[in-house]
Amino acid sequence: LRNSGAERSHVAPYAGLCTLLKADLRQPGEPLDIALVGVPFDLGVTNRPGARFGPQQVRELSAMAAGPKHHATGIIPAAISRFADCGDVPIASTYDLERATEEIETYFQALADQGLVPLSVGGDHSISYPILKAVGRDAPVGLVHIDAHADTGGPFNGSRFHHGGPFRNAALSGVLDPERTVQIGIRGRAEPHWDFSYDSGMRVIHIEEFQALGCDAVLHEVRSIVGDGPTYVSFDVDSIDPAFTPGTGTPEVGGFTPREVQTLLRGLRGLNLVGGDVVEVSPPFDRSGNTALVAATMLWEILCLLAEAHSLRQRG
Amino acid sequence: LRNSGAERSHVAPYAGLCTLLKADLRQPGEPLDIALVGVPFDLGVTNRPGARFGPQQVRELSAMAAGPKHHATGIIPAAISRFADCGDVPIASTYDLERATEEIETYFQALADQGLVPLSVGGDHSISYPILKAVGRDAPVGLVHIDAHADTGGPFNGSRFHHGGPFRNAALSGVLDPERTVQIGIRGRAEPHWDFSYDSGMRVIHIEEFQALGCDAVLHEVRSIVGDGPTYVSFDVDSIDPAFTPGTGTPEVGGFTPREVQTLLRGLRGLNLVGGDVVEVSPPFDRSGNTALVAATMLWEILCLLAEAHSLRQRG
Amino acid sequence: LRNSGAERSHVAPYAGLCTLLKADLRQPGEPLDIALVGVPFDLGVTNRPGARFGPQQVRELSAMAAGPKHHATGIIPAAISRFADCGDVPIASTYDLERATEEIETYFQALADQGLVPLSVGGDHSISYPILKAVGRDAPVGLVHIDAHADTGGPFNGSRFHHGGPFRNAALSGVLDPERTVQIGIRGRAEPHWDFSYDSGMRVIHIEEFQALGCDAVLHEVRSIVGDGPTYVSFDVDSIDPAFTPGTGTPEVGGFTPREVQTLLRGLRGLNLVGGDVVEVSPPFDRSGNTALVAATMLWEILCLLAEAHSLRQRG
Amino acid sequence: LRNSGAERSHVAPYAGLCTLLKADLRQPGEPLDIALVGVPFDLGVTNRPGARFGPQQVRELSAMAAGPKHHATGIIPAAISRFADCGDVPIASTYDLERATEEIETYFQALADQGLVPLSVGGDHSISYPILKAVGRDAPVGLVHIDAHADTGGPFNGSRFHHGGPFRNAALSGVLDPERTVQIGIRGRAEPHWDFSYDSGMRVIHIEEFQALGCDAVLHEVRSIVGDGPTYVSFDVDSIDPAFTPGTGTPEVGGFTPREVQTLLRGLRGLNLVGGDVVEVSPPFDRSGNTALVAATMLWEILCLLAEAHSLRQRG
Amino acid sequence: LRNSGAERSHVAPYAGLCTLLKADLRQPGEPLDIALVGVPFDLGVTNRPGARFGPQQVRELSAMAAGPKHHATGIIPAAISRFADCGDVPIASTYDLERATEEIETYFQALADQGLVPLSVGGDHSISYPILKAVGRDAPVGLVHIDAHADTGGPFNGSRFHHGGPFRNAALSGVLDPERTVQIGIRGRAEPHWDFSYDSGMRVIHIEEFQALGCDAVLHEVRSIVGDGPTYVSFDVDSIDPAFTPGTGTPEVGGFTPREVQTLLRGLRGLNLVGGDVVEVSPPFDRSGNTALVAATMLWEILCLLAEAHSLRQRG
Amino acid sequence: LRNSGAERSHVAPYAGLCTLLKADLRQPGEPLDIALVGVPFDLGVTNRPGARFGPQQVRELSAMAAGPKHHATGIIPAAISRFADCGDVPIASTYDLERATEEIETYFQALADQGLVPLSVGGDHSISYPILKAVGRDAPVGLVHIDAHADTGGPFNGSRFHHGGPFRNAALSGVLDPERTVQIGIRGRAEPHWDFSYDSGMRVIHIEEFQALGCDAVLHEVRSIVGDGPTYVSFDVDSIDPAFTPGTGTPEVGGFTPREVQTLLRGLRGLNLVGGDVVEVSPPFDRSGNTALVAATMLWEILCLLAEAHSLRQRG
Ligand SMILES: [Mn+2]
Ligand SMILES: [Mn+2]
Ligand SMILES: [Mn+2]
Ligand SMILES: [Mn+2]
Ligand SMILES: [Mn+2]
Ligand SMILES: [Mn+2]
Ligand SMILES: [Mn+2]
Ligand SMILES: [Mn+2]
Ligand SMILES: [Mn+2]
Ligand SMILES: [Mn+2]
Ligand SMILES: [Mn+2]
Ligand SMILES: [Mn+2]
Repeated sequence: LRNSGAERSHVAPYAGLCTLLKADLRQPGEPLDIALVGVPFDLGVTNRPGARFGPQQVRELSAMAAGPKHHATGIIPAAISRFADCGDVPIASTYDLERATEEIETYFQALADQGLVPLSVGGDHSISYPILKAVGRDAPVGLVHIDAHADTGGPFNGSRFHHGGPFRNAALSGVLDPERTVQIGIRGRAEPHWDFSYDSGMRVIHIEEFQALGCDAVLHEVRSIVGDGPTYVSFDVDSIDPAFTPGTGTPEVGGFTPREVQTLLRGLRGLNLVGGDVVEVSPPFDRSGNTALVAATMLWEILCLLAEAHSLRQRG
Repeated sequence: LRNSGAERSHVAPYAGLCTLLKADLRQPGEPLDIALVGVPFDLGVTNRPGARFGPQQVRELSAMAAGPKHHATGIIPAAISRFADCGDVPIASTYDLERATEEIETYFQALADQGLVPLSVGGDHSISYPILKAVGRDAPVGLVHIDAHADTGGPFNGSRFHHGGPFRNAALSGVLDPERTVQIGIRGRAEPHWDFSYDSGMRVIHIEEFQALGCDAVLHEVRSIVGDGPTYVSFDVDSIDPAFTPGTGTPEVGGFTPREVQTLLRGLRGLNLVGGDVVEVSPPFDRSGNTALVAATMLWEILCLLAEAHSLRQRG
Repeated sequence: LRNSGAERSHVAPYAGLCTLLKADLRQPGEPLDIALVGVPFDLGVTNRPGARFGPQQVRELSAMAAGPKHHATGIIPAAISRFADCGDVPIASTYDLERATEEIETYFQALADQGLVPLSVGGDHSISYPILKAVGRDAPVGLVHIDAHADTGGPFNGSRFHHGGPFRNAALSGVLDPERTVQIGIRGRAEPHWDFSYDSGMRVIHIEEFQALGCDAVLHEVRSIVGDGPTYVSFDVDSIDPAFTPGTGTPEVGGFTPREVQTLLRGLRGLNLVGGDVVEVSPPFDRSGNTALVAATMLWEILCLLAEAHSLRQRG
Repeated sequence: LRNSGAERSHVAPYAGLCTLLKADLRQPGEPLDIALVGVPFDLGVTNRPGARFGPQQVRELSAMAAGPKHHATGIIPAAISRFADCGDVPIASTYDLERATEEIETYFQALADQGLVPLSVGGDHSISYPILKAVGRDAPVGLVHIDAHADTGGPFNGSRFHHGGPFRNAALSGVLDPERTVQIGIRGRAEPHWDFSYDSGMRVIHIEEFQALGCDAVLHEVRSIVGDGPTYVSFDVDSIDPAFTPGTGTPEVGGFTPREVQTLLRGLRGLNLVGGDVVEVSPPFDRSGNTALVAATMLWEILCLLAEAHSLRQRG
Repeated sequence: LRNSGAERSHVAPYAGLCTLLKADLRQPGEPLDIALVGVPFDLGVTNRPGARFGPQQVRELSAMAAGPKHHATGIIPAAISRFADCGDVPIASTYDLERATEEIETYFQALADQGLVPLSVGGDHSISYPILKAVGRDAPVGLVHIDAHADTGGPFNGSRFHHGGPFRNAALSGVLDPERTVQIGIRGRAEPHWDFSYDSGMRVIHIEEFQALGCDAVLHEVRSIVGDGPTYVSFDVDSIDPAFTPGTGTPEVGGFTPREVQTLLRGLRGLNLVGGDVVEVSPPFDRSGNTALVAATMLWEILCLLAEAHSLRQRG
Repeated sequence: LRNSGAERSHVAPYAGLCTLLKADLRQPGEPLDIALVGVPFDLGVTNRPGARFGPQQVRELSAMAAGPKHHATGIIPAAISRFADCGDVPIASTYDLERATEEIETYFQALADQGLVPLSVGGDHSISYPILKAVGRDAPVGLVHIDAHADTGGPFNGSRFHHGGPFRNAALSGVLDPERTVQIGIRGRAEPHWDFSYDSGMRVIHIEEFQALGCDAVLHEVRSIVGDGPTYVSFDVDSIDPAFTPGTGTPEVGGFTPREVQTLLRGLRGLNLVGGDVVEVSPPFDRSGNTALVAATMLWEILCLLAEAHSLRQRG
């Protein structure tokens, strides 16, 4: 496989073009399983913008996060799947949240038409709604959602397409199954906005409950909830404590450590994962790149999960 | 006068609430001449957002920039006018550029109803259009516009309300007189977008021409163009070289020094100035506050100009 | 209640004046229960100054930390108490540690005269002594003190009013009961200065002992020590590891995580709390604002505690 | 032409892959006139390393510096030449200055074989020697060298290939004509190392002499020295004052402003320019990107020069 | 003892020259037990350089990390040993990795001739090889190695002296006993390079295994592996999560907390420790100094260990 | 001479201890002409503290600013004078501005007893008063003062020893001759505090007048005012525009460029200079070190002046 990384081992990390996880750029007509996609968009934020630069910075830091081989699970994504950096979703309506959301959906519908598993880098969390519209178009998917916020809020300041509401939108559109949805790491001042989560049957695990139960018990529950149906993984970097990921728009003190998130993600092996995203990297709030390095690392973890799930389905 | 600053001289610069130029907050019913207003808005940007935090950071740095007395001109604004920090324009439509533009206009129309001279802190440059709608509603105003960009571009990505077009919009709306408009400091890659400036009769002085002519000659021409009609001053911090003002959305290398801008501004004494703004401070791109300190310093220069102009009109 | 936050829900976090926890500014004559107060002061430091800018930066970051409702405890401070931002303590003697300490005491004695519960934002830790002079004037108070340093050192470089000694001063002045004092998180090179803590009967729990005992056991001991007498809470941001709170004057590697401090603070529910402070935020050492965000978050936690304690006393 | 930028005007500056001056990536077999090349290399530094990340950061900032049209000269490079981003020089010997220098030369010899005009982004200044070996292989070239340092020093700490000696190496190799060489902006503590410049007949214009003569006189002299023979342009960002370009390895206070360098560069129109480079951008010393923005801006200026010179040669 | 720190207690932390752990500078002819040494060197890095500035920044931050007395163990190094800052290893071959490695070895061989215990501050990890050549010259030493990387890789890009291979080099040179070597905290994308560790009998404890076993069990195993033979301690700051130590060349997300490393180090009391190092502090990637503060803190922990071990050997 | 730098030429800039201008540390009993001294003190500031870290950071950046030879004047200080880094003034009264001022004076009186020329690095500008007490003890000195502020203010907030008043204090103490005093670069909001300058006969040249007159005319006037009597040079980094020197306590937009200050300083050759200082470097407000690099560069300029003046007096 071209993107096995084998022939790339002699390229210095600081040299060459920056691509997501140092993957090859997608070539026209090339067969593919997993599409790495940037979504440079932040019209959906409620507070600090900047996530439009997220894909660029995650590409920049990717050289320090990508395998070829996962040291703990042994997964070699390039050995079991074909993936490539497909560039960024083209968004022409840069002044209109609703039309831009439609443009994003159009892009991911085209990926779905090609049968590709999407792995996206945001961009603010509003992008998960149009992505799920494509991923769940045939049947509603389950969701493992790691975030400080449940993002099931209603219309706000005149729009329902903001980054505090994608999973409400997705459930109401019938592309997300709330009863197969788990939200982990929730905390902070936005709590009063999450009624929809409770009312629709989502399982909300606050950071305090996560700490009390322990990671193993949480993972056990996650698996029993999402079952073996198609499931999406959405990772918001603000789920992690802002000491680790300060470059984000709505930080909440008291979050996960990266090790906890890695343990959570690795615990999803074996699930029928059909897509994922890493969102809310806002480079202007962390010029050091540390936040993007965490994001790229989790992107790598999710790529390994998706590659393995894809491979299992193929062998199915 | 309450805002003379005399009784405030014992307050440490790091103490107390942050207000624009350390002015008093406006009290209900209080008579006023000049309204200091924040416009926390950046939906109009074409590239890097963040100017929504501009008013906050200019307030934070104001303690190091405000007089009571201008050291070079001797003007004491509080001795010849009544001014106050009126807080921020309330903007409810945070996801809709056009409706937000209307909200901004509504606010400034109300100020105009009260006969107030507006002095605003952006926010991106798109805010100058709704402000001019109010300032020039009775008769089109002249304009001294200091910027790297002429901001007379047409519709772009689906909207004409972006920050690259406020002065085209204003001229087309009849609130700005293009023949009494001077744009100084223009440079950079957006040049092909400024046809409207040339076509409508605006005087465009590129940074190279400024350097060749010298400040005195430029000021002489400015005065002959704007004459003694009502004139607005718009200062975009990106007119200055980004070493001085890195915290902005569309920096252009090769700009003014702050000393040149101070000389330009002081050269406007005696004009019939009826309003002004300082725009494009984007704090996420300069956490040090240096950009906001430059902005606050120029805000102070413009306050002195507006206070004197107001005072002259009163005595008129 | 005016500060319920209900009517404020449509104000963007980046808009409007910055106040402590986005509370209303105190209006003259307004009845109040809890006084939020800034103490912009750092003449007491032994090493890195800058905490004089602490109140300003905590105000700036408050928009991202304040409720209306605490997500874990359900407390809504504005529903059970009246609080406001009272501004900063005026300090005229900016070159004299002792006289400034007296000015701070005078201010808090006046608050005590009004029967207010003080919740202060420093400033260096030296401010806790004059505050305790007011809080404990009728009877010595107990203390829950979260810090890397015990701050019970003797005179140093010619003064006893520095930030390494407030609790020795308070105990010797009879306003603090050392036998009802617990100090948690202590570590580092200043250990030889804390003899007074041991000699006077304070309970010192080093970070190592905290880790060995676990948070539950520590909280059990805390409750048995401070009992149901009036108790003060003092939180020094340097108790937390400097990765989370780098913006402080005397950082000590190997500290708490914010989650541990949140667990500790929430464990104080039910105590008879009569005041608190958050100290040692030094903005020049963390321009990102992350430290101040942690501080504002803990300020919010303590406000919830004080509001509930006040409410319980009212219902008596 | 594909790289005319016309079809790219709707791509947001923050979207898509980062290439040098937003040029297309070179496609195999594509005919080309000017090769934009990154040289991620810094083994030649005498003090602060980091320039190996220079090409990456210049690519990142390129979106804010590239035309299509030069606002002052009117040059549209894509209309008169074919250029592309050819990626980075592959360097396998990352621990051996001399062998790496040979690898760099090999790469540029291949470009010369194809008749391409090289425009490189460093990397430290040591890269100019192997580049000149290729550019001047048929006949020694003249040089316009803008720098704080003359870079004509002898062997140092065991090597002659460091960044303080490329032009001595080039002159001694017969690929650079010292009598057609002008060095402008020289200053600082390394002066005793530049004897070779004086001895070999180079014209050294210190920053003080530049200031005394004025830019016009300097340009007049430059043109008379380099004449109409093939000439190379080398721009070291440390020629500019470190307030503008702090991200560099050996900053020297008291340098050019960017406006002065732009005036100098534009004054080179009409010369027979056959290549150029922009060197010494060291991103770790300027995370803000301001230095790289200056570098990208000057890269754009030089591209315009090279495109015009190439076009003139074509038209003969 | 001169370096007891007693007479230094009145010196402010911000005053005076910066030395390692605020130790005295070594005076000629002075008897000494432990040599604190800087190794300003980073030619061995595979990615981000800058560790050549490590010793300088660790000296700068030392004032906030050095005792006189360890708060948890009670060790007072100056009471039981003689130590001093010996300055930096002079390295003349700044462009040649292999010759520089020889220069470093020569320096440490001279220390060994004097019977000194070396405690070094890097510099990249390549320095551990020449140091071990001196420390283990009479008999191979055991090793406690705390790192994200096993650093037992083979030749790479033309050299075997890079920072990814010192312990392979040391084992092959017979100065390190692989069977008495424990490597703790290993993780990340370089895993495929560590075959030598497994093949030679080193014990590799990945971060995941550390977490699963717990610190006590790990320490028990460490002690049984290294036994009572002479043992070296090597601490790479990248073993810690980059939120705590961002200033390093090859960060790996998901690492230790500083508290965990402190627990590990304190658990080494009683071992026959004969030297140590703290490496990979790269100041350009953390201007805040937080990384260097962690490094200085761990340097202090290791000094306490070495002083006690030395003292025990003296008392024999 | 030991400090000729000749034998130091092979030491890398990043290696070895940091001393002022890389001078040798003063050895006991060593004969000396010029004493380089740090004054780590900032109790005198009116706004942002941090200058207590000034000497440390100027030492850190000195390696990039010190000669041996001045490139423009040709002066080699070590060839014509003996100078050394004497360390920092010991200040025990870290909480008492007045007593600390006395301690500083005591130190410089001792230097004066030894006949040494002091060249100091602050610290805030309050240190110039106790230094002048020593320098002018036999006869009042003249002064060339480069600053944004005249620093002749009266008592403020209970003290007259703050950094806004040293030259009023010195004149009133009879150690400074106001009629032989020139203050250059003055500007900003503190103007109303400088009456003493005008009343006492000092020549105040605002930045605007400097710009209007030109550097040559100003230098001509300076020389005629200070004549050939003993003269002191005081350089406050805030005289320069904050883009170049952001790391200072009271920045004023619109200041000098470093090139202008270099021209001014070099224009003082031939004056009978008997001491100097560089003050107001506040590292917490510029972690990049750029401000300290400017300060070290100007320190080097003044060292050259003092060495030449000393040498001329010797040859007298
Ligand atoms: Mn989210
Ligand atoms: Mn979130
Ligand atoms: Mn504009
Ligand atoms: Mn602009
Ligand atoms: Mn404390
Ligand atoms: Mn503390
Ligand atoms: Mn150079
Ligand atoms: Mn150079
Ligand atoms: Mn290592
Ligand atoms: Mn490592
Ligand atoms: Mn001053
Ligand atoms: Mn000053």
